[in-house]
Amino acid sequence: MPGSAATTERHLADVVVTCDDVGAVHAPGVVDVSDGRIVRVGSVDGAPPVDGPVHDHGGLLMPGLVNAHAHTPMTLVRGAGDGLPLQRWLTEAMWPREGRMTPDDVWWGMALGSAEMLAAGVTTSCEMYLFEDAVVDAVRASGGRLVVTPAVLSVLHGDAFGSDGDRLDAMAAFHAEHHDPAGRITVGIAPHSAYDLGVERVALLAGLARDLDAVLHVHVAETREESAPLEAEHGCSIVRILDDADVFGGRVLVAHAVWVDDDDIAVLADSGVAVAHCPVSNMKLGSGIAPVAAMLDAGVTVALGTDGPASNDTLDLFEEVKVASLLARVDALDPTLLPAGQVLAMATRHGATAVGLDDVGCLAPGMAADLVRIDLDHPSFTPVTSPDELLAHLAWSGSSRSVTDVWVAGEKVVADGEVLTVDVARARAEVQQRARRLAAG
Amino acid sequence: MPGSAATTERHLADVVVTCDDVGAVHAPGVVDVSDGRIVRVGSVDGAPPVDGPVHDHGGLLMPGLVNAHAHTPMTLVRGAGDGLPLQRWLTEAMWPREGRMTPDDVWWGMALGSAEMLAAGVTTSCEMYLFEDAVVDAVRASGGRLVVTPAVLSVLHGDAFGSDGDRLDAMAAFHAEHHDPAGRITVGIAPHSAYDLGVERVALLAGLARDLDAVLHVHVAETREESAPLEAEHGCSIVRILDDADVFGGRVLVAHAVWVDDDDIAVLADSGVAVAHCPVSNMKLGSGIAPVAAMLDAGVTVALGTDGPASNDTLDLFEEVKVASLLARVDALDPTLLPAGQVLAMATRHGATAVGLDDVGCLAPGMAADLVRIDLDHPSFTPVTSPDELLAHLAWSGSSRSVTDVWVAGEKVVADGEVLTVDVARARAEVQQRARRLAAG
Repeated sequence: MPGSAATTERHLADVVVTCDDVGAVHAPGVVDVSDGRIVRVGSVDGAPPVDGPVHDHGGLLMPGLVNAHAHTPMTLVRGAGDGLPLQRWLTEAMWPREGRMTPDDVWWGMALGSAEMLAAGVTTSCEMYLFEDAVVDAVRASGGRLVVTPAVLSVLHGDAFGSDGDRLDAMAAFHAEHHDPAGRITVGIAPHSAYDLGVERVALLAGLARDLDAVLHVHVAETREESAPLEAEHGCSIVRILDDADVFGGRVLVAHAVWVDDDDIAVLADSGVAVAHCPVSNMKLGSGIAPVAAMLDAGVTVALGTDGPASNDTLDLFEEVKVASLLARVDALDPTLLPAGQVLAMATRHGATAVGLDDVGCLAPGMAADLVRIDLDHPSFTPVTSPDELLAHLAWSGSSRSVTDVWVAGEKVVADGEVLTVDVARARAEVQQRARRLAAG
Repeated sequence: MPGSAATTERHLADVVVTCDDVGAVHAPGVVDVSDGRIVRVGSVDGAPPVDGPVHDHGGLLMPGLVNAHAHTPMTLVRGAGDGLPLQRWLTEAMWPREGRMTPDDVWWGMALGSAEMLAAGVTTSCEMYLFEDAVVDAVRASGGRLVVTPAVLSVLHGDAFGSDGDRLDAMAAFHAEHHDPAGRITVGIAPHSAYDLGVERVALLAGLARDLDAVLHVHVAETREESAPLEAEHGCSIVRILDDADVFGGRVLVAHAVWVDDDDIAVLADSGVAVAHCPVSNMKLGSGIAPVAAMLDAGVTVALGTDGPASNDTLDLFEEVKVASLLARVDALDPTLLPAGQVLAMATRHGATAVGLDDVGCLAPGMAADLVRIDLDHPSFTPVTSPDELLAHLAWSGSSRSVTDVWVAGEKVVADGEVLTVDVARARAEVQQRARRLAAG
């Protein structure tokens, strides 16, 4: 019937950075949105009128950022055991607290982290954690976009891989219940790692992911030591082991990929495996420097992730943008690596591709209207004498500090820096109180 | 006469982080200030009443940060030539623009950078730049604390080292005119580097610095290539060359010290030479990784600097705090290096020592009342189950975003995030317009 068609809303800004494959910058620019999707992006000049409201935001509009590897409920253990050696940090600070967590704890930890991410312009996160129902519920309430990949761990699920396929059935059922791209929730599968679960179980879960056309999300080669026993047993690298076991056949996202060589990178590129690069976490934990420039050269899709807030300790993807470029440059002693436009694409378009979302991550017709407004009224964004300098400022001086407004699928979730969808004060109080309980044991 | 004594003002906060040599944390705590100096720091419990106003700030109070190596007027060229190889960046983007700068340009570039630093909690900066009168004037107007070390460069001053000592006389006169610790301005001397000026001229300026008891501020071993000709000529490292030339006798601050070995570090430690570590700049320019952990082990005073905003591109010392620790850890694959308390001390107390200020950099009786208030009401500061976690949050999640109020020598210069002493809008407009002119040539 007439009138049932959605109206088109126009977002005007001094600058629109599309993060599309040509890296277009429109100044001033418009982003027209209808029914949660972008219908037009371009210069203000020549933009035809729209039938809905027009908002002049000033500032800069860009796509929402994609956090491609996170364990966000670990807000509950942020700061715990800081400075301990890795094994003591895990066994004395992390695992005991995580072992005491309830679904309610995870709900509040995820809610707080969702608020932190949305306020920082992170509109999508790919989550690997336990109590996946609580993760889904908390993100749904926040209005954020979620790729939920329930973690499978030997300590919890090692006995559930019998011939009856209990754990696989449960994963398939969870996927059937929650996979809902239109509702901003997609479901993947996350074997923790081959060193934890064994190669065969990872391969079994990879097969299930392929059957469901779901993302397989797995830790690979984060530390130098973790894969040594498997590599000694098989006589080849962990990447080759997983490739030989047919783990890389479908849509695969490996987190970290720090300890990979050129042959491994060729395997990842040939198999279309995406990598979630987590530079801050890799540095903080002393894990190592991922060969990101070589992966990009080989054609690997490289996304950015914060990892868990206990090893970062923020969920501010703008930090990963800056640090990813810094780390690649100092590693190669080459200041031309990972220029601003490329690293911004890693945080947006490539991130979306890596986590299996084809309609997210850049400002272009047909894409979901996940938008972030950046306040340019700050000394660190001055001066601008060319569009290149604007991209440079966004990459080097961009910060959660400058994010003022955020939309997911056209819905406003942050206004003037305030998260509209999460009771942040309550979430902070809940996480504080629950963290005390988890610490006390 | 009675009544002429200054009253004592009390600052109350939920947390007071002293950054003193025991790393005390008082929660809640007080900082009592009289006549621009701290007269008492401690727990609220048992604090005797004061005769002046009491301000309850909530949040966290800490000492102002010290930016130990900056070329802040380069706000004028921020973002220019981003992504070019180093030599082309210098010769095509930086030097032509810098060659066109006027004292007025430098005044506005410094004013904008001063505002950016104050708003980020940086109360002191050690500046190496040209047009030193403009630098002094701009910082004096901002209320910030300044260690001004006028740059001496071969291209500008190479002919001024004749037997008549013109340049040396001018530096001594500048020192006599502007050195004024009570007025927050101290004066040092900054030969750019031995590779630019030659060893003899650096030694001559070092002698002058010793005569004046002033800080000698010099670039050393930033890149691998820069010292190669001198090292080949002398048959030893640049650090040894400078030591042999008696450059290290006085109060010396070397910037970068990236390409130094254990023997060099021993020389620095034995000579009491302080190092300004600039991790973000060293990474962005692909210069290399300074062996900071080894320097700290050897007892070298290591401070943090942003370097110029063209190679960073912010003046946010909280980024250096985080990145310094991250870089040291990943370089050594050791997550226990540069823990939170240590890296915060580098940004405060050690920074002050490095730039020659003995009464700045920590909260203790007798120290200047350079204070920063941090808003703890942010998800990334949650939870806190021990004082250690609070320090961890400050180091890992601290950000210019969280700085709300700043005092220098007891004078409030930032209130609720607004810089009170600089017309920031005007400064942005001036820098924008002047940067266009500098770019156009």
